[in-house]
Amino acid sequence: MSLTVVGSMAFDDIETPFGKSGRIIGGSATFIAWAASNFVQPINQVSVIGGDFSQEELDALASKGVALEGVQIKKDEKSFYWAGKYHMDMNTRDTLATELNVLADFKPVIPESYQGSEFLILGNLTPQVQMDVIKQLKVRPKLIVMDTMNFWMEVAMDDLKKVLKEVDVLLVNDGEARQLSGEYSLVKAARKILTMGPRYLIIKKGEHGALLFHENHVFFAPALPLEDVFDPTGAGDTFAGGFIGHLAKTKDISFENMKTAIIVGSAMASFCVEKFGVGRLREITQEDINARLEQFVELVNFDIDLV
Amino acid sequence: MSLTVVGSMAFDDIETPFGKSGRIIGGSATFIAWAASNFVQPINQVSVIGGDFSQEELDALASKGVALEGVQIKKDEKSFYWAGKYHMDMNTRDTLATELNVLADFKPVIPESYQGSEFLILGNLTPQVQMDVIKQLKVRPKLIVMDTMNFWMEVAMDDLKKVLKEVDVLLVNDGEARQLSGEYSLVKAARKILTMGPRYLIIKKGEHGALLFHENHVFFAPALPLEDVFDPTGAGDTFAGGFIGHLAKTKDISFENMKTAIIVGSAMASFCVEKFGVGRLREITQEDINARLEQFVELVNFDIDLV
Repeated sequence: MSLTVVGSMAFDDIETPFGKSGRIIGGSATFIAWAASNFVQPINQVSVIGGDFSQEELDALASKGVALEGVQIKKDEKSFYWAGKYHMDMNTRDTLATELNVLADFKPVIPESYQGSEFLILGNLTPQVQMDVIKQLKVRPKLIVMDTMNFWMEVAMDDLKKVLKEVDVLLVNDGEARQLSGEYSLVKAARKILTMGPRYLIIKKGEHGALLFHENHVFFAPALPLEDVFDPTGAGDTFAGGFIGHLAKTKDISFENMKTAIIVGSAMASFCVEKFGVGRLREITQEDINARLEQFVELVNFDIDLV
Repeated sequence: MSLTVVGSMAFDDIETPFGKSGRIIGGSATFIAWAASNFVQPINQVSVIGGDFSQEELDALASKGVALEGVQIKKDEKSFYWAGKYHMDMNTRDTLATELNVLADFKPVIPESYQGSEFLILGNLTPQVQMDVIKQLKVRPKLIVMDTMNFWMEVAMDDLKKVLKEVDVLLVNDGEARQLSGEYSLVKAARKILTMGPRYLIIKKGEHGALLFHENHVFFAPALPLEDVFDPTGAGDTFAGGFIGHLAKTKDISFENMKTAIIVGSAMASFCVEKFGVGRLREITQEDINARLEQFVELVNFDIDLV
């Protein structure tokens, strides 16, 4: 029951129609760890931070069962920084600043203590870095999940295609699925992507939910309709964290259990957007999570008698 | 087990990235009747057409159990005509031509034989015409469902608000729900609209599914992921037809049964978009419908054990 999480740990500076966050903690691996640690511990974190990353944040993660041996600390450098502003619809945003800093020459090192991890999730990073991690593992994990983004399709498609051949589950949003496949229809896009390596494809549609494709099967999980989406930053990573967390907890990688995992991921993402950054994820209890999962059951459950 | 359908019967001329339809049959009441007649007969149709409407189309509807006594035929005039062109995303379209023709001074007359109908659906029409229909009914139907559109919110909001007070279920799309309520969040929009008259609100989100709101409950039905959406014209009306058809068939207007009705509506809409106009609806059998409903069950069904 071990999970290795690879990704960024960073600072975000977010502006939404509801306010400004100031400089807060962010990064794909941060959100994944906060979400997944509700289901499985320890989490073997692999990332890189600068001397500006606070010890308090590291301690908070450690107290959630996140092992930090694989997190490189470059004391004289700065952590990755992203600033962005969301539009009224909360689906589109402008990037105001991106400073790679320590992420620019990130060379992940998998500690010996992480070897043998059964589950691996690769947050959005350079495909070469993702591949480097896979190659360092002495035993192939039971399941490798990867996230990526449109940027890598533009500047590193060849590398991206190589990593795709090594993973089991790919997570992308609808625009990225279209870009990767060259198909507008998500059904056609999925069919094509499933020939590129991954046996499972999850297409995230933000407030419109997520689709899971496998062979000729498709499953749909809605996003919970919320009064307000306060800050969508990290919702995709939190979804991924809930997804892999549930799988690592249950050790069941069947399609049926992946459906449940996607509902768990959707529930975790619905918490994430309620406050800036990981603010809401810091607060929630197992009871909160169960109550939210019950809302999902109510949201989609129906009876039908076929005649 | 009787259903009265009020709306337009018209000609459409549609251009999509897949081709051009030429002049084909359309109109809200046409799509509703084609969909609902799979579940309940007779259907009491109320509409107005010109001398240009073909007898063959009327005969086809009659053979599906659609009573046409309430369809006025103005021999020397032309039927309502709409021409439009869809963009690549199939969610946005440009109207190329709208000719009201017989619809301009439509005064519906409910035949005596339609009185006592238990279910009434008011397709998108001038709110005054919708109100006129309600007033002609000697006994209030068990359930009144109405559709409307943004245009009436702009030019006839007062009339629209009066009709809203008389109906049980309102059907609008997401943009219309926002416009009617002045709220961006659909949850907040729904709460406000549910104080305006309807006890049930259905928000249609096209390819992103539909939401049903009632008191503090919410239910979500996805749209079926399709290889291609060939022509979305009439999908909303077909959805409405499947919805009211299932309710009229089962005579059960509980929230639980409305969930099922929305799935039935979604299944019917998924057929509609596969061909131009009512082309696909003309072909389908009860077996096709059952197979599609099973796809919906597979699409959203999951197991979860709360700990």
